[in-house]
Amino acid sequence: MQEPITGEQLIGFSSSARGSDTFRTHNPKTGAPTPWSFREATREEAELAMALASKAHEAYQEVPGRRRAAFLRAIAGALEADAEILVPIYMEESGLPEGRARGELGRTVGQLRAFADLAAEGSWVEARIDTALPDRQPVARPDIRKYQVPLGPVVVFGASNFPFAFSTAGGDTASALAAGCPVVVKGHPLHAGTGEAVARRVGQAARETGMPEGVFSHLQGSGKDLGAWLVQHPLSRAVGFTGSREGGLALSRMGQERAEPIPVFAEMGSINPVVVLPSATDPGLGWAAAYAQSVTLGTGQFCTNPGLILGIVGEGWQQFTRSLAEAIARVPQGCMLQDSMAGRYRSMRSDFLAQRGVQELVPTSPGEGALVGATVAAVSGKDFIANPGLQREVFGPFTLTVSCSGPAELERAVRSLEGQLTASLLGEEAELQRFGTLLGLLRDRVGRLLLNGVPTGVEVCPSMQHGGPFPATTDARFTSVGTDAIRRWTRPLALQNAPASLLPPELRDDNPLGIWRLVNGTFTNQQGGT
Amino acid sequence: MQEPITGEQLIGFSSSARGSDTFRTHNPKTGAPTPWSFREATREEAELAMALASKAHEAYQEVPGRRRAAFLRAIAGALEADAEILVPIYMEESGLPEGRARGELGRTVGQLRAFADLAAEGSWVEARIDTALPDRQPVARPDIRKYQVPLGPVVVFGASNFPFAFSTAGGDTASALAAGCPVVVKGHPLHAGTGEAVARRVGQAARETGMPEGVFSHLQGSGKDLGAWLVQHPLSRAVGFTGSREGGLALSRMGQERAEPIPVFAEMGSINPVVVLPSATDPGLGWAAAYAQSVTLGTGQFCTNPGLILGIVGEGWQQFTRSLAEAIARVPQGCMLQDSMAGRYRSMRSDFLAQRGVQELVPTSPGEGALVGATVAAVSGKDFIANPGLQREVFGPFTLTVSCSGPAELERAVRSLEGQLTASLLGEEAELQRFGTLLGLLRDRVGRLLLNGVPTGVEVCPSMQHGGPFPATTDARFTSVGTDAIRRWTRPLALQNAPASLLPPELRDDNPLGIWRLVNGTFTNQQGGT
Repeated sequence: MQEPITGEQLIGFSSSARGSDTFRTHNPKTGAPTPWSFREATREEAELAMALASKAHEAYQEVPGRRRAAFLRAIAGALEADAEILVPIYMEESGLPEGRARGELGRTVGQLRAFADLAAEGSWVEARIDTALPDRQPVARPDIRKYQVPLGPVVVFGASNFPFAFSTAGGDTASALAAGCPVVVKGHPLHAGTGEAVARRVGQAARETGMPEGVFSHLQGSGKDLGAWLVQHPLSRAVGFTGSREGGLALSRMGQERAEPIPVFAEMGSINPVVVLPSATDPGLGWAAAYAQSVTLGTGQFCTNPGLILGIVGEGWQQFTRSLAEAIARVPQGCMLQDSMAGRYRSMRSDFLAQRGVQELVPTSPGEGALVGATVAAVSGKDFIANPGLQREVFGPFTLTVSCSGPAELERAVRSLEGQLTASLLGEEAELQRFGTLLGLLRDRVGRLLLNGVPTGVEVCPSMQHGGPFPATTDARFTSVGTDAIRRWTRPLALQNAPASLLPPELRDDNPLGIWRLVNGTFTNQQGGT
Repeated sequence: MQEPITGEQLIGFSSSARGSDTFRTHNPKTGAPTPWSFREATREEAELAMALASKAHEAYQEVPGRRRAAFLRAIAGALEADAEILVPIYMEESGLPEGRARGELGRTVGQLRAFADLAAEGSWVEARIDTALPDRQPVARPDIRKYQVPLGPVVVFGASNFPFAFSTAGGDTASALAAGCPVVVKGHPLHAGTGEAVARRVGQAARETGMPEGVFSHLQGSGKDLGAWLVQHPLSRAVGFTGSREGGLALSRMGQERAEPIPVFAEMGSINPVVVLPSATDPGLGWAAAYAQSVTLGTGQFCTNPGLILGIVGEGWQQFTRSLAEAIARVPQGCMLQDSMAGRYRSMRSDFLAQRGVQELVPTSPGEGALVGATVAAVSGKDFIANPGLQREVFGPFTLTVSCSGPAELERAVRSLEGQLTASLLGEEAELQRFGTLLGLLRDRVGRLLLNGVPTGVEVCPSMQHGGPFPATTDARFTSVGTDAIRRWTRPLALQNAPASLLPPELRDDNPLGIWRLVNGTFTNQQGGT
């Protein structure tokens, strides 16, 4: 199956091709351009998308959760039904293998349905009702009811490393649409064709399920200007971004420096430290093999890629790091998303290996073109602590092992760490308790702490926290994966003394939606009267 | 009853008087200095307070909710028991009447107990548990459990207008301590004696209930340097502030510009627009009298003071505004918190009355010294819309009535409004529905929307939202009043695959605290196993 990729913008329900500047996408495996040419969105097109989104906000915020859910399910259904069209475009533009493409599409569809369920169920609005106490002394208590309401138009940036799951119809878009916010996507230029094909299905789903025009638009742009302009646009109300620290910080600053500041949720990468306690070096546990796989998964292009592995010198640790390096050296070279990313990987790899005390454990080839070989570098705890530059993220299949002279140096190394998405601690239960201080230090620095596991593989579920202390993300109080991601696009609104006819269903006495609410201090999902 | 006011800092469990610079507080009614002299905290003292707070964080975050609750209740008990000591100091420094002092103390005690109840009950941590599904295809699901954890040391600024309820042991302090965060208070210099007396009781309560030293410190400073230094201190993790827009924006910028940005929750004032629909001008409803009282309550020094009242020209509106102005003119002059505030009130009042088309409805005396007369100014909708300067907050007993030519101009006036803490809409139910667009516009601009009520009087309850779109506050997604205020000082932490012995009680299978949790997608407070 094939369908034409037109290279146009999707603005509301219409395609738009006003611009004359174009750009192309490339197949990273061959370096050859794809058959498609994409038009850069013009200012007028972007303005129209924002104006439509703002207008759609007035209607879309009133669309009941069950209808928003139908919209999300229609998107999911269309993506699933058209896998045979979408997967080849994804593979052409990303160089990622078919299994990954299908897995990521499945995850994307699963996310859309998870947010559909959340919107349909409705308890996510965190309704709190305190009914009037007219006879209270010294003053009567008024009737007050609060729930989460959508912020308004959200600008979503497609992420290079997840053309399906963190891009056009990815987690940011799904959670914002579930919350009741229109979305304007600035597609990632590396997979503009994938973006267009997905966007067409989102637009079609919006039409078919009767959503207001402007609830979704998709704009193409190869440079930084379009995104910056959207973040600064007076009608945008929040931003979702996954990418580099440089890009995330720049957008975050723009969000703060507006006349009316808006939240910019930027996930900016992380080296996801792993601490291997002595018992975990036992070869029978298989951690070296598990981490060799985790480091090289998806050619190391995951935000939870473990880029730092710390342990205490000794025979076990030496054997562990050796096994890890040998296992990684056996992994075939992988294709990165773009030649330039592979180039950056190679130059950062060289830079790391030139740092004081850093060496490769088992020499590997850096690769060429978009193909790269994985790297295990090694350094002492002392040299690591002395050199904050070794905490930079090397995007790709790279990890740095840090050999600490003892528990005290290990603790110092962990104290020196910046904020991270995840940290992992490997060891026996009794040993984990002995290293309680270390556990506390890791907790303070991460959004998710794993005990005896690998950080890659981010489950989409209510308990997931994908967001850690700065500089891993701009706001550790929110998650970009899992159902709580919906909160990023909402704020509380209290209604005081509102007549029943003006209350939304979520706040009515009879709880017609049957949602969980805190009513006069008690959690209840009772229907039919408070 | 009396007790000495020493003018010293409270740092951890000790008084400290290292500084030699001093300042005094004054009785605004007489202009005379109080008998006390206060030492400016030195950098070394501030550094020690922050270091102790950071050290206390390690222990205090592990203190169970029930013990945090005991601490908060001990503070509440001490403040209540010593009302006869505290109220005279408060009155001496604020010029506010005894009834207000006792009412505010009661509210402060009530807040402390509400947060104690919240901490003791424990469900506020929003526990989410997804248990392992080892046989799930294509990949197993790991065990993941998430809850809210405290951010670390919080810097709280005392607010001039609430020496008890928004200062040393006010809502910010109570919510932060309940969340598990140590607090360093930068006391407000206008009521430094009240701050010291309250702080002494907080410190005593911390000692008596076995809290770690450094969980609370109180620093005095008459200028801006100390507060700025605390916000910029690498160990501070969040900031609570209630005050001017200028001050709030400056602190917020400092928080953003740190090497590691931190949230600054600044409430920066609001003019709390009121829309009077035609039916509400009926004199029998008494709204003119109710608003005359609301505007002049506490000499207009409330954050929810209604500073803007909009209506549609006509006989009813004319009569309403006339009645309002006459009622306000009859209110005796009130004492502001400081001569300089009264001076600023008078100069802004004059400035407003000099704006195009603005006039006083019933001339009142601006007063002198700390005493001020209330003002009702009037302007046409057209002149209001054309002059954004008329949206400035005049801190004090001031309100501006806006006479719109019809519903369309009223809607335009509302569209022109900035973000606000509250808005109020007065009218009959059928009329409210007819003005649905207006209602939607107000909703988008506020944190709390009142139907047929007055905004002053902020209930402390789960449904309260005290925080509105910028520039009313720096972050409309959080509230500074009500139990949800605890969220400001926390972030989510997920634990993956943690052995039972490392789980906090909140996340254990048997739910020993009996809290409400989302377990595998179902809300439950069941104990004894999931």
